Amino acid sequence: MEKLTIVKVGGKIVEDKKSLDMLLADFSSIQGKKLLVHGGGRSATQLAAKLGIETKMIDGRRITDDNMLEVVTMVYGGLVNKRIVAGLQASGINALGLTGADMNIILSEKRKPSPIDFGWVGDVRHADGKTLSHIINTGIVPIIAPLTHDGQGNILNTNADTMAAETAKSLAGYFDVTLVFCFEKEGVLLDENDDASVITSLDQENYASLKAKGIVSGGMIPKLDNAFATLDAGVKKVLITRADNLKDFTRGTHMHL
Amino acid sequence: MEKLTIVKVGGKIVEDKKSLDMLLADFSSIQGKKLLVHGGGRSATQLAAKLGIETKMIDGRRITDDNMLEVVTMVYGGLVNKRIVAGLQASGINALGLTGADMNIILSEKRKPSPIDFGWVGDVRHADGKTLSHIINTGIVPIIAPLTHDGQGNILNTNADTMAAETAKSLAGYFDVTLVFCFEKEGVLLDENDDASVITSLDQENYASLKAKGIVSGGMIPKLDNAFATLDAGVKKVLITRADNLKDFTRGTHMHL
Repeated sequence: MEKLTIVKVGGKIVEDKKSLDMLLADFSSIQGKKLLVHGGGRSATQLAAKLGIETKMIDGRRITDDNMLEVVTMVYGGLVNKRIVAGLQASGINALGLTGADMNIILSEKRKPSPIDFGWVGDVRHADGKTLSHIINTGIVPIIAPLTHDGQGNILNTNADTMAAETAKSLAGYFDVTLVFCFEKEGVLLDENDDASVITSLDQENYASLKAKGIVSGGMIPKLDNAFATLDAGVKKVLITRADNLKDFTRGTHMHL
Repeated sequence: MEKLTIVKVGGKIVEDKKSLDMLLADFSSIQGKKLLVHGGGRSATQLAAKLGIETKMIDGRRITDDNMLEVVTMVYGGLVNKRIVAGLQASGINALGLTGADMNIILSEKRKPSPIDFGWVGDVRHADGKTLSHIINTGIVPIIAPLTHDGQGNILNTNADTMAAETAKSLAGYFDVTLVFCFEKEGVLLDENDDASVITSLDQENYASLKAKGIVSGGMIPKLDNAFATLDAGVKKVLITRADNLKDFTRGTHMHL
């Protein structure tokens, strides 16, 4: 099968002009077929603040009421997504910006309002690997914003890591998929303050031991669980690394079952 | 050749929940292949005001400085476009939201800064009918926001009427195109205060006479010039009508060379 590289980048990288330009150059230099999933949370928080809309987060997840849904739809689907698309077009990359609603590529279910009512937040139910693979095979590079829909006319705010993982799983039957989660650190670290302590290879046994010792904790646990699940579902390689390592896939933490 | 209906709707219709729902129902009921071009100017003006950004218009055209470019990218490419896409998906229409930057479908040139510096405003140079026709032939319904790009990484604010006209021209070689400009009045009127005075059929000779008499004036002149130019370029039918006439294409003003 042909190779496909799926890159997920967080908000911080795509929101600063300088780091965005570097990301676009590095992403452009990745050979072969590729796809990008981006965040944009910091810009959403900034725009909300300017509009007098308070940002409420629980466990790092945004409460998305009617006003916040407008903000994330504008920021993720408009501002951030179209900047990336126009930037890549300038490098000769045939980018196509998408949300899950576009061509119905990612359908979600609105999260139940209990125990916590997150509002207009979606949990992915189905990613359409067939349609995405057709698009990718015509030479198009999908740029996916962290928004999905419920099939009933509502846009849903959706976690970008989950979207990258679900997209990767849905494409594992069509391509030899490498999934790269870009991160602010060099990779998974033994000492969170020392980039030199990066764990270059992580399997499920090591992971269990690192969790037991408390070396991996907090928000990293759902990230890594998510990542291992994609390997289970047929994704060939999963890599956790800094965005500025996109030129060199030997760096970072390589995950294995 | 197969029929294709291209509908252009202004901001007012897509910005109000009730009229948007009606538009989506009417657009969904159009048989066969179709494409929608939308505006969103009023929402952009509203968001700009909330952000303390002043809206400056010259001859009905928006001056688009750096801040206003962010606003229109968010509102046209994000909020308005994705609401339409999600709404149509709920009706079983396989909508795909696009700006001109996506798949490089509409390339523009930034308008020269003299005599008036409109800022980040684009004049269309090329619409890619070939790519659009491929997409349409797979059953996808493109929903186009009034944004293009310059091929150098910049998004450009672009007149929606022009985008509809250029898109229609680019597709005239692939489909039997009907272009429908939706408008707040019944069509071109002999008496602007009387919808019953609609001119049901308008050719270039009548048009010249109406202009000479001052019955057609102001902003209608570029609209109609634009429309006649599409007929010249091979578009089969051009209709100017109210959005709520989308169910009945016999109404409104039918244009002829």
